[in-house]
Amino acid sequence: MSRYWSDIVQQLTPYVPGEQPVLAHPVKLNTNESPCPPSPRVVEAIRSELGDNGESLRRYPDPTARKLRETVAAHHGISADQVFAGNGSDEVLAHVFLALLKHDKPILFPDITYSFYPTYARLYDVAYRAVPVDDAFAIRVDDYFAPNGGLLIANPNAPTGHALPLADIERLVAGNTESVVVVDEAYVDFGAQSAVSLIAKYPNLLVVHTTSKSRSLAGMRVGFAFGNATLIDALNRVKDSFNSYPLDRLAQAAAQAAYEDDAWFRASCAQVIASRERLSAGLRELGFVVVPSAANFVFVSHPAHDAGRLAAQLREKEIIVRHFKLPRIDAYLRISIGTDAECAALLEALRVYVG
Amino acid sequence: MSRYWSDIVQQLTPYVPGEQPVLAHPVKLNTNESPCPPSPRVVEAIRSELGDNGESLRRYPDPTARKLRETVAAHHGISADQVFAGNGSDEVLAHVFLALLKHDKPILFPDITYSFYPTYARLYDVAYRAVPVDDAFAIRVDDYFAPNGGLLIANPNAPTGHALPLADIERLVAGNTESVVVVDEAYVDFGAQSAVSLIAKYPNLLVVHTTSKSRSLAGMRVGFAFGNATLIDALNRVKDSFNSYPLDRLAQAAAQAAYEDDAWFRASCAQVIASRERLSAGLRELGFVVVPSAANFVFVSHPAHDAGRLAAQLREKEIIVRHFKLPRIDAYLRISIGTDAECAALLEALRVYVG
Repeated sequence: MSRYWSDIVQQLTPYVPGEQPVLAHPVKLNTNESPCPPSPRVVEAIRSELGDNGESLRRYPDPTARKLRETVAAHHGISADQVFAGNGSDEVLAHVFLALLKHDKPILFPDITYSFYPTYARLYDVAYRAVPVDDAFAIRVDDYFAPNGGLLIANPNAPTGHALPLADIERLVAGNTESVVVVDEAYVDFGAQSAVSLIAKYPNLLVVHTTSKSRSLAGMRVGFAFGNATLIDALNRVKDSFNSYPLDRLAQAAAQAAYEDDAWFRASCAQVIASRERLSAGLRELGFVVVPSAANFVFVSHPAHDAGRLAAQLREKEIIVRHFKLPRIDAYLRISIGTDAECAALLEALRVYVG
Repeated sequence: MSRYWSDIVQQLTPYVPGEQPVLAHPVKLNTNESPCPPSPRVVEAIRSELGDNGESLRRYPDPTARKLRETVAAHHGISADQVFAGNGSDEVLAHVFLALLKHDKPILFPDITYSFYPTYARLYDVAYRAVPVDDAFAIRVDDYFAPNGGLLIANPNAPTGHALPLADIERLVAGNTESVVVVDEAYVDFGAQSAVSLIAKYPNLLVVHTTSKSRSLAGMRVGFAFGNATLIDALNRVKDSFNSYPLDRLAQAAAQAAYEDDAWFRASCAQVIASRERLSAGLRELGFVVVPSAANFVFVSHPAHDAGRLAAQLREKEIIVRHFKLPRIDAYLRISIGTDAECAALLEALRVYVG
């Protein structure tokens, strides 16, 4: 604390990201990164932008990321003015809170969801109400028709991996026309239905994507919002009042190339999905309860073993998984889908502890 | 306007960055980029991080940019916990407004200065008072001892290039111990004295730097704040409530390498300073009044020619300079120091219009 700190800072509870371990060869299954290297086209595009001597780096990047937005818009069959690009979907979500979710009424999101959401709300003094998911961690759509300043639904949800069908998302959007419904689709490519197809129909729908998961670009920090041009305009107004150039030249080039390689994208998503199903089966064999997942992670619990203790035991073997010491989910571990070797190492270690 | 927009968005007046012209070979002297390519070590460092197949890009970057901060701290003779790293100094300044300048009393900054400052103030509802500079565009130190919620001084100032001596900066800091004094040193390496040497002495001093000017990395978006660890802690708390990973892997590697090549840094600053003095002499020969500049740009006016018209005429020749249609400075052009060829092209064109 300090007299120099603003009142807001005094009251903040910052988000704590998953550990980035300083270990030689960790089996890192705690932050839902992709097990696949990015598309070779990404590497080519970065090299091309870099050139022989990095000449272009002395110039500011395109503040509007026009080429990137055009490429991503074409991929989704929408127009570039329906696309906002930001420095990772975390930054996109921050701007969404300030631009579109800060109203008199509280926003609604599930009690079990991405733990950054309440942090954003505190940062921008946005009132919120956490709506309980059911005992199977399913979002109960009927609970979201109360008066609200906006809805925020991760689909698939984190850290549970639970997905809502598109018809349920549409019911939420159609039934809340007075406020913006934000669908955070960070994990959608691993088995859920995207709501991007609905943005032409609903001016109150905003869909958020990231390149950190299914595009293998967590290290490059690029995320998007898709929606009606009026919603995107609000985000641009905040961006241009915050940092007009959020995406550096290499990040723009990398993300654009990732969207230009659809074959790579489909193959890597298919690989992750296949690995998830194998890992889920292996974990069930060991007695774990595995929540059905549409994401690149599984959320698991063992009836006879404490989750925090298991996480600590794995940590000793340099296998890092995520344990949230939070109400309702402290008996669970969230395990990212790694390479086949990483999944095997995890199962082998767990066999010792729970076998 | 839209009912979905927050009240804040309805009231914003976003910052308008200098044009990024879509021309084949513009003489681009409007955004104070460096005329020098970055250090060769920057290119090497990016290639090294990229590796053969971009493997590391699938992993999140270090959220704390520890190695980069250690390198920059060593360069300045301070410790890493006195360094905050952000996605360009524009992002750093945004966090500064929310974390350290949002108090009951208004902050003070010059009426002629970086035009993003009032934009940040509107974004975060920070009260401010613009203090007039004198008729030679000098900041009058004595005007900054009124009760305030913080001071914000660009040194050298933009768009004037006017610098305050370090003794004046120290007088501002020592005379305002109840609030934070932010010194934005984006252009300091081109001829002014840095206040970084004072941060050990004054817990209320925060110094902001960028790699966009003297490090030739505008395209990579890396900026810093230096100050007492308590001030840096406030910025980290906001960052971790906004976007825990603001700097991608390649940006961290690039900026670190730039600080590891001091010989390149000194040579490129010396080149820009020499070019500035030659360009200033050439402009004076053409009858321009040239404000003495300690930055990588000059601020000039011609007694017989309208500045807006000159800018438009230059634009026709694909020479882009900056003209601010603002009170007190609309008779001036701000011209970045380009390569020798660019400066020559500018003088040649102006000779036709004003000769």
